[in-house]
Amino acid sequence: MISFARGVPAPECLPIEELADCAKAAIERDGAIALSYGAAGGYEPLRGWVAERHGIEPERVLLTNGSLQGFVFLATHFFIGKPGRVLVEAPTYDRPLKILAGLGAEVVAVPQDEQGLDVDSLERVLAEGPAPAFLYTIPTFQNPSGRTLSLARRRRLVELARDRNLLVLEDDPYGLVRFEGEASPTLFELEGGERVAYSSSFSKTVAPGVRVGYLVLPTELARAVEAIAVSTYISPSFLSQATVWEFLRRGNFEPNLERVSSLLRARRDAMLAALERELDGTARWSHPEGGYFVWLDLPPEVEATALLERATAAGVTFVKGSDFFPEGQGGASSARLAYSFVSPAEIDEGVARLATLVPRGAPAAV
Amino acid sequence: MISFARGVPAPECLPIEELADCAKAAIERDGAIALSYGAAGGYEPLRGWVAERHGIEPERVLLTNGSLQGFVFLATHFFIGKPGRVLVEAPTYDRPLKILAGLGAEVVAVPQDEQGLDVDSLERVLAEGPAPAFLYTIPTFQNPSGRTLSLARRRRLVELARDRNLLVLEDDPYGLVRFEGEASPTLFELEGGERVAYSSSFSKTVAPGVRVGYLVLPTELARAVEAIAVSTYISPSFLSQATVWEFLRRGNFEPNLERVSSLLRARRDAMLAALERELDGTARWSHPEGGYFVWLDLPPEVEATALLERATAAGVTFVKGSDFFPEGQGGASSARLAYSFVSPAEIDEGVARLATLVPRGAPAAV
Repeated sequence: MISFARGVPAPECLPIEELADCAKAAIERDGAIALSYGAAGGYEPLRGWVAERHGIEPERVLLTNGSLQGFVFLATHFFIGKPGRVLVEAPTYDRPLKILAGLGAEVVAVPQDEQGLDVDSLERVLAEGPAPAFLYTIPTFQNPSGRTLSLARRRRLVELARDRNLLVLEDDPYGLVRFEGEASPTLFELEGGERVAYSSSFSKTVAPGVRVGYLVLPTELARAVEAIAVSTYISPSFLSQATVWEFLRRGNFEPNLERVSSLLRARRDAMLAALERELDGTARWSHPEGGYFVWLDLPPEVEATALLERATAAGVTFVKGSDFFPEGQGGASSARLAYSFVSPAEIDEGVARLATLVPRGAPAAV
Repeated sequence: MISFARGVPAPECLPIEELADCAKAAIERDGAIALSYGAAGGYEPLRGWVAERHGIEPERVLLTNGSLQGFVFLATHFFIGKPGRVLVEAPTYDRPLKILAGLGAEVVAVPQDEQGLDVDSLERVLAEGPAPAFLYTIPTFQNPSGRTLSLARRRRLVELARDRNLLVLEDDPYGLVRFEGEASPTLFELEGGERVAYSSSFSKTVAPGVRVGYLVLPTELARAVEAIAVSTYISPSFLSQATVWEFLRRGNFEPNLERVSSLLRARRDAMLAALERELDGTARWSHPEGGYFVWLDLPPEVEATALLERATAAGVTFVKGSDFFPEGQGGASSARLAYSFVSPAEIDEGVARLATLVPRGAPAAV
């Protein structure tokens, strides 16, 4: 089975030997702290590293058990026991959609185009009110679309956040995994961190199995969210966090990121070349400059659910587009293709298999 | 400051050197798994170890980021977006009380005496209905009381669970940290695991900083709770879990437990001797055969809140009893004294300081 479904790094992306050494060294260096309970906000040296990187006080950083856990804390803060509205871009990462549905929040989807979130639509949604608790967005190498919000739109979004007193949660786990082109400033950098909260993770830059993500929040919100973290797990795994810290203090972060990006670039290249070869004129797809994902829009007569069934039988899987929209709101003829877990050769073969199942005809609508 | 507040192992209880070796070996042995995403239920070999220990299928085990996280999952399953009732013993561990309050559950406290949960009272509460989602209990070396439910009561509780179709969550993080006496079977063992869910942790037997707890659930509930875990953090820290597994497979569990229990026994002995010396005839206290805590009942004219303030000024702290009851329902003249973090010499000195602040008079009511 060739999996374009798994948005997971290939084993060769993991710095196994180095992390083995780091885990041992971290415990030997600081075991009495790393092996005990600690602050819910995380292991102090790593918290400090993140704070310094983002130019803020360590109290505003919460290290979480993966960044999704941070999203759960934030959503819990806003929605547990109280109704409310939240904005997402569509398509968007599926797990937050499930979390928000579980909490009973009213989820309003704002559409996207090739340049990312459609800020005009956002403005209309905000004008029509009621005011949302926050907007959840992944502006760079988005999951699932691979798209990146243009600089012009970033500026407008930040202005809008200020004017409308809108809290934006910028989720940025992929931003550093860039293959080419120049990075725009993050929303957090453009805005200064008052109306923009920021989350990221070491899952794509170090390893997912350490489960170390983080949230950067406005001061007051950080305090409230840390109280929820205490009451959820006392503290996250300090063993993991101390291991990541050891990895960073040895200067491994940048070289490892370069190595990983180069492995992923080859996969992205293979994916785009295979799509061009097999589906040019039939489908459209995004052209990510980094991250893990390509978004594939198939002709409207193709039902992604049915295609997935036939594809699985043919030995290739993906995630159907509708999983990334609130129920029934889109993605019926789309697919998320992850190139992170599979080799270039598997990508060639997988796309070829997929293409034989797609009827040739008019290209997909934009 | 001498802290009887911290229910935390002293640094000398942590097997630092051994865990440093285990972390390295675990990553070297199984890094491609241990450093990636995995099942939300946890790292397979460790899940298997727990399953075997409890004589059930691995699918019924969920390894969580500390056992409190498991409690959050279970409570979320029952109460998010739906009202409901839950029973707790009083006093009980304070964090679940906060979690349940946050979820808006109706918390009904069932009293305790020296033999643990008062099963007669429980029977009355159940008869008066409505049916609770579950009963939360810590039958062995309870936090905060140090008390242990008698065997006779365990049998009656299990009968009641069967007769009334009551789900019991048996939280048992301290049970293996026994200094003397013979262990009663757990509720889980007595009942067979249909109406009794079981949670425990490696925090007290290996180290808290690894954050590895677990839930053993009836099959259907396990599936539902695992879905919540996926949507909360994808997977817990496999690095931590693989490290614990390495520790176990090297045969370190039992010898380390013996070493830790012996360190804690000396502290418990020091605590009981100091209380006898300083407060005999003035206060009453529990006599735990294991675990971390002694429960102190002071004369009713002593306000624990005021005492804590004066004690802190005198360089000794504890947690006031009322923190372990639903708001306003008890503990006004009681205190939880943890002996786990402090040395025997500190315990002598701390109890002496405390005693000077307690007026001599009629002994505390039972």
